[in-house]
Formats: sequence, C-alpha cells, structure tokens
Amino acid sequence: MPGKFYSKENLKFLLHEVFPVAELCQREHFKDHTPESFDMMLEAADSLSTNHLRPILPEMDRNPPYIENGRIKVHPDMRKLMKMFGEDGWISMSASHEFGGQQVPFTVLQAAAFIMAAANYSTMAYPFLSTGSAHLIETFGSKELQRTFIPKMFSGAWQGTMALTEPQAGSSLTDIVTTAKPTDKGYYLLKGQKIFISCGDHDGCDNVIHLMLARIEGAPPGTKGISLFVVPRMRPDGNGLVFNDVNTAGLFHKMGYHGAPIAHLIMGEKSDCRGYLVGEPHKGLSYMFQMMNEARIGVGMQATSIATAAYYNSLEYANVRQQGRKITDKDPGKPQISIIQHADVKRLLLFQKSIVEGSLALGLQASLYYDNWHTTEGEEKENNFLKLELLTPIMKSYPAEMSILTTSAALQCFGGYGYTKDFLAELFFRETRIHTLHEGVTAIHGMDLLGRKVTMQGGKATMLLMQEVFGDIERAKNSALLKPYAVQLEKELERLQEVTMHLIGKAQSEGAEVFLADATLYLELFGILTLGWQWIKQGVKAEELQKAQTKNYSAEFLQSKQHALQYFFEYEVPKIAGLITRLKSNNPLTVKVKEEEIV
Amino acid sequence: MPGKFYSKENLKFLLHEVFPVAELCQREHFKDHTPESFDMMLEAADSLSTNHLRPILPEMDRNPPYIENGRIKVHPDMRKLMKMFGEDGWISMSASHEFGGQQVPFTVLQAAAFIMAAANYSTMAYPFLSTGSAHLIETFGSKELQRTFIPKMFSGAWQGTMALTEPQAGSSLTDIVTTAKPTDKGYYLLKGQKIFISCGDHDGCDNVIHLMLARIEGAPPGTKGISLFVVPRMRPDGNGLVFNDVNTAGLFHKMGYHGAPIAHLIMGEKSDCRGYLVGEPHKGLSYMFQMMNEARIGVGMQATSIATAAYYNSLEYANVRQQGRKITDKDPGKPQISIIQHADVKRLLLFQKSIVEGSLALGLQASLYYDNWHTTEGEEKENNFLKLELLTPIMKSYPAEMSILTTSAALQCFGGYGYTKDFLAELFFRETRIHTLHEGVTAIHGMDLLGRKVTMQGGKATMLLMQEVFGDIERAKNSALLKPYAVQLEKELERLQEVTMHLIGKAQSEGAEVFLADATLYLELFGILTLGWQWIKQGVKAEELQKAQTKNYSAEFLQSKQHALQYFFEYEVPKIAGLITRLKSNNPLTVKVKEEEIV
Repeated sequence: MPGKFYSKENLKFLLHEVFPVAELCQREHFKDHTPESFDMMLEAADSLSTNHLRPILPEMDRNPPYIENGRIKVHPDMRKLMKMFGEDGWISMSASHEFGGQQVPFTVLQAAAFIMAAANYSTMAYPFLSTGSAHLIETFGSKELQRTFIPKMFSGAWQGTMALTEPQAGSSLTDIVTTAKPTDKGYYLLKGQKIFISCGDHDGCDNVIHLMLARIEGAPPGTKGISLFVVPRMRPDGNGLVFNDVNTAGLFHKMGYHGAPIAHLIMGEKSDCRGYLVGEPHKGLSYMFQMMNEARIGVGMQATSIATAAYYNSLEYANVRQQGRKITDKDPGKPQISIIQHADVKRLLLFQKSIVEGSLALGLQASLYYDNWHTTEGEEKENNFLKLELLTPIMKSYPAEMSILTTSAALQCFGGYGYTKDFLAELFFRETRIHTLHEGVTAIHGMDLLGRKVTMQGGKATMLLMQEVFGDIERAKNSALLKPYAVQLEKELERLQEVTMHLIGKAQSEGAEVFLADATLYLELFGILTLGWQWIKQGVKAEELQKAQTKNYSAEFLQSKQHALQYFFEYEVPKIAGLITRLKSNNPLTVKVKEEEIV
Repeated sequence: MPGKFYSKENLKFLLHEVFPVAELCQREHFKDHTPESFDMMLEAADSLSTNHLRPILPEMDRNPPYIENGRIKVHPDMRKLMKMFGEDGWISMSASHEFGGQQVPFTVLQAAAFIMAAANYSTMAYPFLSTGSAHLIETFGSKELQRTFIPKMFSGAWQGTMALTEPQAGSSLTDIVTTAKPTDKGYYLLKGQKIFISCGDHDGCDNVIHLMLARIEGAPPGTKGISLFVVPRMRPDGNGLVFNDVNTAGLFHKMGYHGAPIAHLIMGEKSDCRGYLVGEPHKGLSYMFQMMNEARIGVGMQATSIATAAYYNSLEYANVRQQGRKITDKDPGKPQISIIQHADVKRLLLFQKSIVEGSLALGLQASLYYDNWHTTEGEEKENNFLKLELLTPIMKSYPAEMSILTTSAALQCFGGYGYTKDFLAELFFRETRIHTLHEGVTAIHGMDLLGRKVTMQGGKATMLLMQEVFGDIERAKNSALLKPYAVQLEKELERLQEVTMHLIGKAQSEGAEVFLADATLYLELFGILTLGWQWIKQGVKAEELQKAQTKNYSAEFLQSKQHALQYFFEYEVPKIAGLITRLKSNNPLTVKVKEEEIV
C-alpha cells in the first residue's frame, strides 16, 4: 500500500462546500449527474491511482523510456493502463454524448486528474493528452475526422498529442516552419520537425495521432499563417494502417517525468506524410488555443498534484521520524521527539499545505469558470469566460513556480535522507521542475497576464474578478477570526490596483518593454493575492462547518484549514511588499542593461 | 574544451582589490608567499579543473558509485586524481611547514577549491575532506597519530573523512551511541554505525581514515560525553595494513553529487575495530567543531561554485540561443534575436550573478577573518574570531538556500531544454540541493545565528561586524552612484537591529521556542543584508577602478558589477520587508499549532 498522496477529505470539502459542484447538475449539459455520481468517479480515480498508478512510480523513475529500432519503449504496464483509461471512460469523460462521452464537468475531471497526477504524474499525461487533442477534433474537425479518429483515441488504442514546438522556434510559434503542401486528394503533405512531443511515440498504443501546427505553402508569415492538422503516425488506409512517414528521430532524456517519453519527430522524409486540415486554413493557432488553455489549467493542477504528494510524504515522515528534543528541554536522558514537534518543521509543512491547498482551490475555481462559460448564456457566459482568461496564466504559473519551493521544503523535512533515493522526496522535486517550462515558460504567462488579460476590454476581467473577491472579503469580515485577514487582503488588493495603474502609466510613458519587464513579478504578486482569496473562501466555509459542529469533516481537518490560512497570511502575503517595491521602482534595470555588460 | 565555469577576472578582482590578500603576505605565517604565488596557485587550480575535473563531470553523473563485493567503486579516474591532489600539494596546502604543508592562507585555498568545485563538485570533496580531517590530527592528535596518518593522507594514498552522523541521531549529535571501549593497549574498541559518510569507502585510495565521534564507556550523556577517534579502515600493523573491522554496509543512492560516494559504515562487527583517541576524552565535539566550522564555510562556497557554473552555463546559452523578437518589434519577417535580449532573461541572469558573486565575496570575507584570527594576536585575533563565528551560519546557509533558486533560474533560461540531459543545467540543479542538508540543515544554522551568535558576549560579534559594515557604507556614500544604495542598506540594518531587539524581547517574555521559531527567516534576512554589504564593497572598488580607467579589468566587467549591485538592491533587498513583517508578528503560529492539527 502506498502512503497517502492526497486528501480525500480536502477534495470533498472543496467540491461540495467551497465550490458546490452540485449546482452544475442543474444545467442541461450535466443533467445526468449528481453529487453522488461525482463522488463515485473520484472513488474510481482513487482506486485506479492507488492500485495501478502509484505502485509503479518508483520503477518508472528508475527505468525511463528508451529507443529500440527507431521506436520508443515505455513501461510495460502502459499498454494495460491505456486500455483501462479507455475502457473506464477516463479519456472521453468530459466529451459530449454525441462522441460517446459522459459530459462530466471539467471541474470534476480536473479533480480526478489531480488524484491520478498526485499518484503518478507521468501516467496521467497519456490519457489526458488524448482527451485534449480529441477535443480539438470534436470542436473544429470534420465529421469524417471525428469518425475516423475519436473512437480509437477514446478507447486508448490510439494516443493523441499536441505537436507545436520546433527546434528553431521554441516558444516563439511565429517562427514554426513545418510546411503543408496541398494536394488534390483532400489531404496535405507535411514536412518538418517537432520536438518535445509528450507521448509522441510509444509502444503502449497502436497508433499516435498528432494535432500539429504547420504552414500551408504560401501562407502569410507569423501566427496568422498557421494551420492545424491531424497527422497520424499510421494512417488508416482501406482496412488497415499504413505508415505515414512520421519518424521518431529521437527521445529526450530528462531529469524527471520518466514515465512518459518526449519525442523528436521528423515528418515527410519520404514526402509521404499526410495531414488532414482541421477547420479552416490559417486559423490553426486560434484552434490550438482551446487545447493550450485547457492544458495550462492542467499544468498548474499537475504541479499542485506533485507538490501535494510531496507534502503528504513529508508529513508522514515528520510524524514518525524521531530526532532531537524541544529547545526548552535538552535533557539527553529523555527520548527524542518526532520532528514535527520542531517549530521549523511545522513551518515547512504549513508552507507546503498553504500553497498546495490554495493552488488546488484556485485550479478548481478556474475550472468552475470553464464549466460556467460552457454551460451558461449571454452575460454570465461572457463574464465567466473573462474570469477564466484572467486566471489562466496565474493558474498555469504560480502553482508551478511555487511547487519548486514546496517540493524543496518537503525534501528539507527529510534532512540528509531527502537527498537520497531511499525516499520519494527527491523524485517529486525533480518531477515538478518541468511545470514552469512546458506550456510556455513563466515569463510568457507574466506578459500574457499583464500585457493582455489585465487590460483587455478596458480591464473588465479584473473588475469582474475583484467584484467576486470583494464579496468574499465582506463575508469573511463577519467572522472575528477571519476579519483581520480579510482586511489585510482588501488592503493588498488596493495596492495591486495601484501597481497596475503605475505600470499602465509606464506603458504609455516608457513603452511596452519597460511596462512588461517585470511581468513575472507581477504574476507572482497577483498569484499570492488570488491564493489569499482562495484561503479566505476556505476559511469562511471551514468556520461555518466548525460552528455547525459538522460530523462530515474531522475537527482536525477544519482546524488545519484555519492554521494554513493563517500561515498564508502571516508568511506569504507579506512577500507582496517586496514585489510592490520593485514593481513601483523607476529603474528599468533589465531593459537598460546592455547584453554585453552581463559577464 | 569545457565552457566557462567561473570568472578568473572576478576572482582576481576579489582577491586583489576587494580583499587584498597581499596584506596577508606580511604576516610571519604567510611570509613565503606573494600575490604572484597566489595567482600561480589559482592558475594551477584552473588548469587541473579545466583539464581533469570538468571533462569527466557528465560521465561521473551518468555513472554513480556502486558496490561490488562489499566495497565501493568510484569513477576510474579517481585514483589518478587522488594522486594528483596529493603530489601537487592540494591536500596539504594550508597545513603548516611542520607537517609538510605550504602554509597557504585559508582564503586562497578556498578560492582554489571554489574553482575546482565549480568544475566538478564531487571530485573536490575527496581531497578537502582529507585536508579537514588531517587538520584535526594536526591540531589535537598525538605526535604518533600525526606521524602515522598525516603523510599518507597528504599524499592522497589515504582518504580522510568526518564520521559523525548515525541513523537514529541525524543532526542530533547528543544522541550518538557508537561506543568506544578502553583497552590496556592504548587503543579503544569501537562498535556502532555511521551513515552519510562522504568518501567513506572507495577504490580510489589505499585506505580510509575516519575522524569519528563515539562515546567512551561510562561517559556522561549528551554532547559532553563524546570523544574523537582516529578509526582507520585498515590499521597499520608492523610493516603492513590489517583490516580494522570497519565494514561498508551500504551506499546511499542520491539525486546528484554522483562522483562521490556516501557510505553506511558498521564498526566492530567482529569486535576488532580499533580507534585511537584524539586529544582528551569527552572533548570530541569541541574538537570536531574545528572541522565542522571550516566545512561550513566550505559548504557555502561549494553551493556558490555550483551556482556559478550554472550561471555561466546559462549566460553562454542565452547569448547564442536565438528565439523570439523584441516586444516592440514583432515583424515575423525579421530574424529572431538572442534570448539574452529579452528583459526577463536578463533578470534571470542578473539574479544569478548578484547572488553568486555576492556569496563568493561573503565566503572570502569569512575566510579572511579565519586567516586573521589565526595570524594575529590579542584583541584583533579575538575580534576576527567573533566576526567569523557570526558569519559562519550565514555563509553555510544563505548561499546554499539561494543556490537552489539560482540554479533553477539558470535552468529556466534554457526553456524546455533545461529539463533535458542535453545540457548541464539540470545537473547543477540536482547537485546543489545537498547543501542545505549536509553540515546541518538550515534550521540549525538559523538557531545557531539567532540563539547563540547574535547574543554571545552581549552582542559583541554583531557590534564588531556592524562597525565594519557602517565603515563601508560611509565610503560608499561618497559616490553619487552608490549613495542611494548605501543609504538603503543603512536603513535596513537599523530595521535588522529593531527586529533583533524585538526577538530578544520575545525570548524573555515568551521563551526560547517562540524566540527561535522563525530563526530560518532571520537568517535569510541577515543573509540578504550581508550580501548587500558585500555588493557595496564591490561597487566602491569597481567605481574606483572605473574612474582610474584601469587596464587590469575590462570595462564590461566593471560595469557588470554595478548592474549586479543594482539588481541586488532593486530586487533582493526589498524582500526584507516581508521577512521583517513576519518576524515582528505576534502570532507564534508554528509554536502554537498542535502537530495533530496539521493534516
């Protein structure tokens, strides 16, 4: 039996108390569901994770994928797991009935995926990459593409991928050069290279379906000339599959995430790589943003998953490991105490808890906006969309950046053992490091937040979000316990607004480069405040339940929420002061300094 | 040829301008040396590092030590390297002439070791562990122990270690239980276990000499009953060596630092493990502190070395990697730009530079106090000792903690490639993670700083250090460029003093546990300010040289110093505000929270 890697009680608290997903069941699209059916789904995710995913985590880490005869080999269980992911409906869970899906809310699916990623991050990359890429075909593809590819992807027989990155372009999608040459037979001939393609080739499936960005010959330069294609590794041809000239040129060896391969692919070496256009020409990037935005919420959630697993791992150790004595009681004749009794170990634990539970709440909040956006109409729909847009770069990046620190804190709890492979702490620390990199490095999301999201529609998204936050602050002010923190958050939000205005002023007076130079810090500032908000929400709900003397949650769990809230406001929120000082500085150092003067 | 892994120009600047080691040559103990002979020594370290240490770094990482027939096997080059470290005089360099050493200042030795650790951290652990353990025998051992062990250790034939940690005790040395039974033959019989013994057994040498803590039977409990022994793996017996019942029970597999083994040893399974007492009984821990304090400066320096290597690695990449365009120039028809031109990449680089060059300066500052302490008399001696004592926990921990962040920033510069084994970035990130753990976890040093060092002799150490810092601040105020930062530092130091007084008040009103609960944060605060001080010192000297239009340093190098200084004051020093807010809070959260309420 693996140790605890997430908290069922917390997930229940968030989904049933803080973000009552029960309300979603009243919507037409989700009408087949009940809170109980959601719980059953999470139980199934728990069972799959506990029995199949977590047990193979250490051996997956020790045995990363490898190439044999030009093909990538992964852990032998992956074929069985792909089948399970398919048969148990995980891949198609959020898809509509039309495609054989179960129309499960995105929020609930994210919660299930959170459990799986906490158990074994690599293994859950496979099914949910298929979900996201199939969703592109569902939304933008022709009936024929849908018929041909979706059922096989949903069954787990065929793997879906997103194929964007190229060696010379990296994050700069403007510069992708893979070409698509039209033919008179309805398909295009693709030629080019893609790198860092997660699950881009592996022997756990029968075929790989790439949702790939490429330029149709003669297309305009830049992002306005990018189209989206379905490019299978093996193309259906008559009754069988024919090799589609998608070659596995290499496999990247990496510092963690060893269970899933990331591939280097070369298309069209024999000029026989067929791609099938999705939607209209030159609109590929806007389509791809559907998957990218979903994946960005996912990345933040997965960083949170790994960090959550690290938290429980270190919490368990801190409770059993005996070492040292209280500062006030150094008598060597007395037995040693469990290290959780040392104040600094409590600090390392509360730090982790405040970040991972705050991040999980934020991820579910964003997911709820996603579901609301998709299942409401008019202004409500638009408002939820805007709030989701605003939170997306924050949810992508803040939990990812913080997970580096929290998994490091988890490792620190183990002392010297944390550096060894005797425990999983070092694995979590390596594993989560990918999340500030893939789906766009943090700097890109900082610029997205400050340069686009905050200012779009005259700042409407920020205004809508703040309305909601201030509503929650008002509720918290009714509690003697929470009022000081609610007031603190309110004050800090005013300072955020001042900083935003200051920066927008800079945009006008000194131009875009100075405006955005410290966008990463701005994102951190905004991230801290959104987590503060999520803690206020949780604190209010926990206190309600405490006062009602509920039997649905343990007293320790509810009290623990108040401790983590206090930790966040005592230790994390004060960090804002330093960020604000820098953001308000008039020294545009990183713009001003010449490259050759960094030596 | 490996890429640049440290800056010769910077080391020259620090050793000849900021901390003029030339002055040491006027002391009797160092009279054989000249600034030129120091430079030759550093050239030799550079040559050894470039030609022998750095080239094997990647393969050492890929092929960690392993056990074969109960013995640990390391990289095949280690035997040759051990011989070179011996023959070239590295192991004995700082030892006195009496023992065949060269009486090189600790400061210069640390600079040489810095170069080697930047090249390949694991390889330099071997010789300098021997240096430190031989130094214990030099200082506290009998003539016979000196004669028997030191020459072989200095030649590189025998490896020295420090053997403190035990499985049940970890950092709590009070609880070590290895026993030493007196015999009437002049030696003791040892029985017990030690873990995490760096270079505790390996096939690169002919013998391993453990400087080991144990309890003589009947000794008082706690740290007052610990004695120090020389415990060889093979004991000299007549003309040969006889196995001394020190068994290698295991090898720890770890996340980095793969070039050096850390061993689990069992002594006395056949009741034939002989140990030779060093100095007097029950004084072992006080003796061991000599090596521990030297090693603590070393740990901070080595974290700085790895972080420096990561900095130059990422700087080189940022200059060659082409990606994206200026925010103000998005024309996809134009070529891409090197990523160093992006403001956020400059931020990631200046962050690293400000930390690693600040930390290196701090390490040399502490080393200079060490040399002054050892080569002056009376009050000057005492004062240097006190300042060294105060800086030791800071130098051990602040660079170590920050190196986690700076190597992470280096990795971030590589984008997705940073996560892969195509570059060394991920190796540095893994490698440096050990430094907040070994030689005492950070929490211990925080408590040492706040609970002992700051208050010892009525705060004399702090007062002496502050006198020196304020002197440097006054000098900086004469410069129009530096004055704002000098004033900023002065103000922040006043706030440090306020916080210290506040905490000491807490010690009286609420007891030691509350007083020390956030000692780790206090250490961070103190660390930031000492680095600010080191930047002020460097800024003053760089400006002097700029004004003198020196030809000894490139204009870019000197200008780069001013940029890094500004970065540190613009981005790092403001973090103090958050730390102070927390340190002045009256909510002793981590003391108050019950263990069972962290779930």
